[in-house]
Amino acid sequence: MQFTSEQRLEEGVLEREFTLGEIPGTLWTPESAAPAPLILMAHNNGLPKNQPRLVARARITAACGYAVASIDAAGCGDRPRSAADEQARAELRRAMRAGEQVDGIFESFIGPLVEKAAPEWRTTLDALLALPGIGGPVGYSGWMALGIRLAAADPRIAAAGFFAGGYVPHAQREEARQITIPLLMLLQWDDEGNPRQRALDLFDAFGTKEKTLHANLGGHTGTPWFELEDGNRFFDRHLK
Amino acid sequence: MQFTSEQRLEEGVLEREFTLGEIPGTLWTPESAAPAPLILMAHNNGLPKNQPRLVARARITAACGYAVASIDAAGCGDRPRSAADEQARAELRRAMRAGEQVDGIFESFIGPLVEKAAPEWRTTLDALLALPGIGGPVGYSGWMALGIRLAAADPRIAAAGFFAGGYVPHAQREEARQITIPLLMLLQWDDEGNPRQRALDLFDAFGTKEKTLHANLGGHTGTPWFELEDGNRFFDRHLK
Repeated sequence: MQFTSEQRLEEGVLEREFTLGEIPGTLWTPESAAPAPLILMAHNNGLPKNQPRLVARARITAACGYAVASIDAAGCGDRPRSAADEQARAELRRAMRAGEQVDGIFESFIGPLVEKAAPEWRTTLDALLALPGIGGPVGYSGWMALGIRLAAADPRIAAAGFFAGGYVPHAQREEARQITIPLLMLLQWDDEGNPRQRALDLFDAFGTKEKTLHANLGGHTGTPWFELEDGNRFFDRHLK
Repeated sequence: MQFTSEQRLEEGVLEREFTLGEIPGTLWTPESAAPAPLILMAHNNGLPKNQPRLVARARITAACGYAVASIDAAGCGDRPRSAADEQARAELRRAMRAGEQVDGIFESFIGPLVEKAAPEWRTTLDALLALPGIGGPVGYSGWMALGIRLAAADPRIAAAGFFAGGYVPHAQREEARQITIPLLMLLQWDDEGNPRQRALDLFDAFGTKEKTLHANLGGHTGTPWFELEDGNRFFDRHLK
C-alpha cells in the first residue's frame, strides 16, 4: 500500500489517498488515540469513492473516532470498464428511458460487479489491518449487495450498516440468510427505482438475530442527516 | 392538581404522584434548569402507569431533561372498569385462548377506551402546562392509538413517538392521515398479536412528511434498550 497524497482536515482527520496494486483508495483516520476501529465504506452500485456524499460521510465518521476506508474496486468508480459493462450500462439507460423492466439487466450487471469487487475489498482489508493505528473489529457501511458478499465471505466484518437503495443480485439475496452479524438497514420509503417490498423481504431474510431497520419518508437521495449519527451510534455499540 | 407524594431519585429526578379530580397521575421532572419540555407518556392499551417498564422509560427520559407525565385515564390502569369493559376483556381472553379472530372485540374495546381517555389526557395537559418549570413544546410517547387521537385533536402536541404494538381502531387509522407532526414509529418485527403489515400500512398512511420507522427483530416486549436513547434523540431534535 502506497500513500500518494495526504490532507489534514479541520475536523481533526487525516485524509490520505493510496494505491494498492491497481486499486485506488482513500483512508480517513482520526487524530484521536490509536488504534481506531475500521469501517469499510462503499458507495452504492460501484459509484466513485470521491463522490461528495460518500466523502462527507467518511469524514464525519472518522471525526467520531473511526478509521474509514473506501476504494474504487474493479469496474467501479473511475476504473476502466469492460466492454460488457459498458454495454450493460447503455442497455440499462435505454431500458429505463423506455420504462421497461430492468431487473434482468441489473442482475447481469451488478452480479458480476459485486463478484469482482469483493476480492479487492478483502485484499484492501488485509493491507489496512497491517497499518499501525488501525485495529479491529471491522465494520462495513453502504452498498448492500457488496456488504452481503463481504460479510458472508469474511469473518472479520463484525457489524454492517446497509443502504437498501440498490439492486441486490439473486446470489446476495440468498447469502443474506447466512449473515449473522448485527445489522442496521437504512431504507428510503419512496425510493423510485427500488421496490420497498423487496427491501422489507430482504430485511426479513437476514439470518442475524440483531437487526434494525430505519425507514424514512422520501426518495433515493433523501436520507435525513440524523441517520449518519444513528449509524455511527450503531457502530459505537458494536465496534468500540 | 394536587400532589400527594414525592420522591427524589438518584438520577436527579423528582417523581411526584398527583390527582386531578378523579385522574391519578405521575410527574417526573429533572433537576436541571427550567422550563423543561413536556412529554406525555402513555402505556399501550391503557396498561397501568406504574408498570415497571413505563416507569423506567419515564425516569430515564426525565434524567435527559424532560418533564414526563403519565396518567391512568378512565378505564385504564387501576381505574374502575365499566361492566362493558369487563365483558369485552373476558370475551377477548376467551377468543384468544380459542385462537379466534379478535379484531372485532379489540375494536369494540379499544375504540371507546381511546375516546374516553383522550379528554382526560388533554385536561391533564392543561394543568401540567400551568405548572412552573414545565414549558412547551409538548411531545407524546407510547400508546399509538391514543397518540393519534391526541395529535389529531390537540395542536400543542409537536412530535410523537409511537409504539406499533397495539390495536389501532378504525377511527384512528383514518385520523392518521391528518397527522402532520414529526413521527417516530417503533415496530417489533415479530410482535405475536400485532400484524406487521398493518403497522407498515399505518406508517405509510400518516400525513406527516417527517416520519421515521425503527423496526427491530423480536417479539412484543423485546424492544432493545437503545431505542429509548434513539427516541429521546428524536425528541431532542423537535422539542429542545
